[in-house]
This record gives sequence, structure tokens and C-alpha cells, in this order.
Amino acid sequence: MPYRLAYLGPPGTFSEEAALQYAPQAQRIPFLSIPAVAEAVRSDMTEEGVVPIENSLAGSVTDTLDVLIEESGLQIRREMTVPIQHCLLAPPTVQADAIQAIYSHPQALGQCRRFLERCFPKVQVAATLSTVAAVEEMKASTIPAGAIAPHRAAALYGVDVLAQGIQDSPNNLTRFVVLASADHAPTGDDRTSLCFSFRDDRPGLLYEVMGEFARRGINLAKIESRPTKESLGRYIFLVDLEGHREDPPVREAIDAVAERASLLKVFGSYPRDATT
Amino acid sequence: MPYRLAYLGPPGTFSEEAALQYAPQAQRIPFLSIPAVAEAVRSDMTEEGVVPIENSLAGSVTDTLDVLIEESGLQIRREMTVPIQHCLLAPPTVQADAIQAIYSHPQALGQCRRFLERCFPKVQVAATLSTVAAVEEMKASTIPAGAIAPHRAAALYGVDVLAQGIQDSPNNLTRFVVLASADHAPTGDDRTSLCFSFRDDRPGLLYEVMGEFARRGINLAKIESRPTKESLGRYIFLVDLEGHREDPPVREAIDAVAERASLLKVFGSYPRDATT
Repeated sequence: MPYRLAYLGPPGTFSEEAALQYAPQAQRIPFLSIPAVAEAVRSDMTEEGVVPIENSLAGSVTDTLDVLIEESGLQIRREMTVPIQHCLLAPPTVQADAIQAIYSHPQALGQCRRFLERCFPKVQVAATLSTVAAVEEMKASTIPAGAIAPHRAAALYGVDVLAQGIQDSPNNLTRFVVLASADHAPTGDDRTSLCFSFRDDRPGLLYEVMGEFARRGINLAKIESRPTKESLGRYIFLVDLEGHREDPPVREAIDAVAERASLLKVFGSYPRDATT
Repeated sequence: MPYRLAYLGPPGTFSEEAALQYAPQAQRIPFLSIPAVAEAVRSDMTEEGVVPIENSLAGSVTDTLDVLIEESGLQIRREMTVPIQHCLLAPPTVQADAIQAIYSHPQALGQCRRFLERCFPKVQVAATLSTVAAVEEMKASTIPAGAIAPHRAAALYGVDVLAQGIQDSPNNLTRFVVLASADHAPTGDDRTSLCFSFRDDRPGLLYEVMGEFARRGINLAKIESRPTKESLGRYIFLVDLEGHREDPPVREAIDAVAERASLLKVFGSYPRDATT
């Protein structure tokens, strides 16, 4: 049986680009939500799954954080960073100067605002639920229309790329993670993701916990809080740190945090992507 | 001239409910995006503006954090918490057992999953760009349809409330903030929101900064990181702490953090909402 890789579909998304970059030979299987990708991996329907976890402009992908916090039997095995390049697509019969409407997801429209204002100041801009839905609405449109979508969507939907790299910011990157049943062996340049929370919220508790990492020289690449879903004032803290969970200082720090926390969950250790 | 209050519209949203709860007598003016509400306040088109900042299930509202980080001349003057109660709406001619399709925003559909599975297992569920758009699509539907939307939308759109409180979690709360040209005077039970970032990212720098608060007995109610938009590995840290920026320990801690940080911005001090 071939190696199967789940990803956040439908085909033509940036998640599919990440999946292709990670494992070009894999049998790629699209799922329509992040929890569905997680379930595919957990149930052995696929060996691994690729989901976005963070975008440099939009921030964390909360569905992925929630899956990591709530699901068991899933670990982060790899991370990878993909540049987000938006393209203007149109049917072969439609020239750029004929376009009267442009469809896309609100986030993509927002990321291409300058391009739209400069090149299509009088065009009607319409929001859709996804960039793939934008391509479908463009094809069904009765007036000449374009869509903002990933490059890959053009070939899949038989339409043309009229412009590429049309996003305002050159620093539009998305970090993806590969979910699997186990994480990665140490390589010497690793990152570890974990979460913890406290039953009490006395002043300085988070500070003490961070001290367990700081005094061992472990750099925290990222710290973030998510509501616990119990109430607004209680949080789960998510941390990315430099090192592997089997490195003695990291292991000691995690053990020390576990003593203070009411919940501690290690999402996995994996090779650090040099671009982040 | 009456006191004018901008809010994230259109009419019928939970932001309008928050605006009504905050200032029932105000002239409410809807704007269609969070940056537009901020601009209305900044330009004196309205005295104040109400925007969501955090939901207990979905987490932070990143558009509001970005406005606070990037815009000048805006402060948080108040916070308030509103319970999110979803309702099933339908036109007066449509009975519950006749409904064949239900429209709503994907987040609302997700928050009412159990209700939908139990009461409408065979109904077609369709995603829309907002709950208000769901009501409009429901009214235009050629088959008998319902919509999941706030209670207030029923009266505004002349439709009936068939069921209320249909969300899965009883702890679905949204915290709103009131933006104004200045923050609030000390009351003795206040909260302060601020952000900071560092030019360098050496191990322990965030820990040292948190020590400035911890050693003065200042509780950090929340800490969160947002990408700086320069690259994925660099973050702006957002903190909510207990106390007013004019309280001497808070003032001293903020001054000490400012010496270490490359950026420090106080979003404002305001009376603490007892429910959070």
C-alpha cells in the first residue's frame, strides 16, 4: 500500500502545496476540515497529515491548536514553512481589462488590497467562503470575472494565471505541521511544542514556570494563551521551545513544569525548519 | 449633538447587543469592519466604538489586536462580557418541521453542532459569510429554510425565533472593548492592556520582562504572542495585567519593561469587568 498523506483540502489549497513539498510521492488525500485530517491520522486511515498552524500575518490557526490540545494519539513529527503567493486567475476567454468582478476569501482579498486598488479600482469585489469556492463562483459568473487563489488551483480548474505574487506583503508565510502517531527522533537542531495550564491563577505562577526554562538556557521561541473553554479568565499556555524533549535540560524543565501545572501535554519534538 | 457609538455591524450582531448594553441611549452607527470602527473613533466621527476582542471558544479577535498594535490615538476605555446565545430563526410561514435547509456562519454552525445533529439530522446545512447574510439567504431561499443568528436579528428582519440558546457550550462568552481617544480614570479595580516586543530574541528576555511584573506582585491575566508581520519567528507580546497604569507598581514595571523592549505600547487602563 502506498504511503498516504492527509491534508486540508480541497485540492488546490496551500495545504496541498505543503503536502507536495513535504512528500511528493505520497498518495495525497484531501479532508475538508482540520479535525477531519487529525481523525484520519488517529484512525490510521493515513500515515500522516498536513495542517497549517500559523501565518505570519493572520497569526495562529486555532483549529489546529485545539486539535493538539484536545485529541490524544497525535504528535507533531515535522514543521515546514510555505510562502503564500496569491494569484489572479480568470477563465481562458476573459482578458484582464474585461474583468468586472473578482472573487476570493476575505483574508486573501485583504492581503491583496493594494493590488486590487491599483489595478482594478472599479471592479466589484465579492467575498467567498474559500479561495476554491472563489474559482467556482468565477467560472459560474455571468459577467467577466476573476478569482484570487493559489497558483495550483489554475491547472486543477482549467483556468489561466493572469498575475502572480499579488499579495501586499512579501513576508506572507504559513507554517505547517505534519501530524503522525509519533514525533521525530533527535537531530541536534530541534524544536518542541507543548501546552500547560494551572488550576489556580496566583500572581507569578506563569513566571515561575518560565523560569524553569530560562534557568536551563532553553529559549522559548513562542508563547501563546488560548481560553480553556471553561471561562474567559482561564487560559491554556502554548509554548514552542528550542531543543528536543529527550535533551536532558529540556526533559528536566518539562518535569519541573509538570509538578506545578494541572495539565501538561507535549505535542512533540521535531527538526527545526531553518526558515522560521 | 447626541453621543455617537460606532460598532461592528450590520445591525443584529452581538456587537450591537454589546453596544446596547453599554450605552442604551447612544446613537448607534454600524461599520462593516473592525478597522472601520477604529477609524470612526480616531477621526471623531463617533465618540466611542465597540468591537469584540476575545471569545471563550474561538480565542482572540486578531483584527482588533492588530488595530490596537498599529493605530495611534486609540485607547481602551471599557471592557464588557456578553453571553453568546444563538437562535434558530425562520420566516413566519415556515414551521420547524418543514425546514429543509439551515444557513449560518461556519463558526455559529460549529457552535450549534449538537443541536443540529439532534433536531435536524437530515437538513442541509449551508455556510454563509455572516449570521446576517444567513438571515438574508434564508429569506431568499426557494425551499423552507432557517438561519442561526442572534436573537436581535429576528425583530430587525421580521422573522420568528423558533429556538434559543441552541449553542453546545454554556460558556460561550465574548469580551468586547470600548475604543475611545482616552482610557479610563483609576477606580481601584482596573485592568491594563499593553504590548511589547524585542529587537533581539536571546533566551530569557521575555522571562526577565515578566519578572518586572511578578516581583511587584502584579498578576498577568493573559499573555499572548502575535507575529510581527516581519517574519514568522518574531513576535509581539500582548499582556493584560491587574491594576491601573497610574498605580505606582504598575507604572514602575512598565517603565522597566520599556527600557528592555524595542517597542512598548499601553492600550489603556479600564475598570475590570467582574465576569471575566
